[in-house]
Amino acid sequence: MKRPWQGQVEPSPLTTVPRHDPHNPLCPGATRANGEVNPYYDGTFLFDNDFPALQPDAPNPGPSDHPLFQAEAARGVCKVICFHPWSDVTLPLMSVPEIRAVVDVWASVTEELGAQYPWVQIFENKGAMMGCSNPHPHCQVWASSFLPDIAQREERSQRAYQSQHREPLLMEYGRQELIRKERLVLTSEHWLVLVPFWAVWPFQTLLLPRRHVRRLPELTPAERDDLASIMKKLLTKYDNLFETSFPYTMGWHGAPTGSEAGANWDHWQLHAHYYPPLLRSATVRKFMVGYEMLAQAQRDLTPEQAAEKLRALPEVHYYLRQK
Amino acid sequence: MKRPWQGQVEPSPLTTVPRHDPHNPLCPGATRANGEVNPYYDGTFLFDNDFPALQPDAPNPGPSDHPLFQAEAARGVCKVICFHPWSDVTLPLMSVPEIRAVVDVWASVTEELGAQYPWVQIFENKGAMMGCSNPHPHCQVWASSFLPDIAQREERSQRAYQSQHREPLLMEYGRQELIRKERLVLTSEHWLVLVPFWAVWPFQTLLLPRRHVRRLPELTPAERDDLASIMKKLLTKYDNLFETSFPYTMGWHGAPTGSEAGANWDHWQLHAHYYPPLLRSATVRKFMVGYEMLAQAQRDLTPEQAAEKLRALPEVHYYLRQK
Ligand SMILES: O=P(O)(O)O[C@H]1O[C@H](CO)[C@@H](O)[C@H](O)[C@H]1O
Ligand SMILES: O=P(O)(O)O[C@H]1O[C@H](CO)[C@@H](O)[C@H](O)[C@H]1O
Repeated sequence: MKRPWQGQVEPSPLTTVPRHDPHNPLCPGATRANGEVNPYYDGTFLFDNDFPALQPDAPNPGPSDHPLFQAEAARGVCKVICFHPWSDVTLPLMSVPEIRAVVDVWASVTEELGAQYPWVQIFENKGAMMGCSNPHPHCQVWASSFLPDIAQREERSQRAYQSQHREPLLMEYGRQELIRKERLVLTSEHWLVLVPFWAVWPFQTLLLPRRHVRRLPELTPAERDDLASIMKKLLTKYDNLFETSFPYTMGWHGAPTGSEAGANWDHWQLHAHYYPPLLRSATVRKFMVGYEMLAQAQRDLTPEQAAEKLRALPEVHYYLRQK
Repeated sequence: MKRPWQGQVEPSPLTTVPRHDPHNPLCPGATRANGEVNPYYDGTFLFDNDFPALQPDAPNPGPSDHPLFQAEAARGVCKVICFHPWSDVTLPLMSVPEIRAVVDVWASVTEELGAQYPWVQIFENKGAMMGCSNPHPHCQVWASSFLPDIAQREERSQRAYQSQHREPLLMEYGRQELIRKERLVLTSEHWLVLVPFWAVWPFQTLLLPRRHVRRLPELTPAERDDLASIMKKLLTKYDNLFETSFPYTMGWHGAPTGSEAGANWDHWQLHAHYYPPLLRSATVRKFMVGYEMLAQAQRDLTPEQAAEKLRALPEVHYYLRQK
């Protein structure tokens, strides 16, 4: 962190996004790439991605003639969820009931797509720095015919821990962090947010329910309200850290779904990962390059330092304080 | 690839870098952060990184009280290698003998640091987009007291393949690609360059010797000359792709070194990875975010399409054609 920085500085995010832009395909009433017209929705809005990376009928690559050249069809569907009819808000600037409505769509889309697909990945790319190409507040849902790499790794680790210690890894982990306190960012009646011991991004966090919950649809109404409230607090702290609309990738991981949903997945604990790229300021990011790409992650500040900084930040958004 | 792109556009790289800047700590004769003055070197120049991420005397974190909270000291040294006395050249604009001199330093620094450390990671972050904070042509060397994560994964895969098939994974892989041809980019008497079957970055390549070579110091003089020549061709193609000084992270992987160097590492084959971020143009990159960070890599074009594009590009640098 003491190195002088003469490297790349990111462009500042647009400060003014129009509330409604009839040419933005995510806005109420807009015409999308496939010719469909969006309803004049006034809450959340779920629709099929017009440029899906996964398709239900992807062709089979056929048999392979060599162990080093193995391929399989990746089938699935891709959806988009708009969080709000306005383009100029973000989750931390939405009300708790509005965020709660997003939580409900997350739960219902997991239920709907999870009936058919073994993995339903909900994720939000926020900010141009994170490859987001549309400022309207939204996330994506990609449901797949297979367990993706990272889901497989979490499955292996959680299964191994459970078989050795007879309890879910993330239940014991959350309990330990509540005792140790040094990596905690926020706690509420039903949730905790911490900078994980294994964090690689400077201000990475993990959002965990206190109760053993395997999947989003299992959350009770009280847990959903409390989730909306702790998310608003976390995202407000994030925005306050560098007084910018904080970019990140976030997403949910829960027990696999699909035809095997009824098997024993008690080793799974639902959680969300937040991976924000910023390191020093609103325009200087952490580059995961060189040593990180070829060898191993290395941190520029410790998880405990990051947690301490986040804990100290106000829970009122800087934008509202300025007004 | 059909999606409209309204997202982040990267700043264009500086087109004019002064050949010599007395305030640039990488230049001949400049004073570095630690007060040392660089010699007026006229070839390559190897020195200790003034801001090392790894240090030989890192303290031991002490015993852990819990299986989920395990930590170990990461010890090592970090060095920098300047490729050339001038700041306004890059490898593809250097002569083959000048590049050959870089290959020789790579080999000798591997030998020198590998006497003590089990892993010597040579890597180059090229371009501001890859977090490079100094335009002077250079790379880094981080030697560590441990096998980093990715080295461990390559060790496991290569060892398992060898024990099952009785030959090194990457020897058989290279042979297969020479037969299949569709992913080849360049071949020479001693080397091949291909877009690997498993590539995640759009124009990722793998550089492999044809002979079974475990580590850089084992390369013969003829193999080193040929390496310099094929690197110049590859990097010229890269620059020609979008007519820009092509950003990338590259680095070498070879058999582990240190006190265990004498063990049987015949399952290892030396290779270099090139990971370039650009996707559509000199200013529109591939974002490894969202689904990639939370689930699995997904490609925007196939490895075969990428190889075909790279094959078709001229081996004369666009900059020299313009002059
Ligand atoms: O060592 P540099 O050039 O200051 O820093 C660069 O390379 C390092 C090693 O890959 C990374 O950890 C940094 O994020 C990157 O900015
Ligand atoms: O789907 P989008 O927003 O067009 O695209 C973004 O998210 C995708 C899924 O994480 C990534 O593969 C793309 O690189 C990124 O630009």
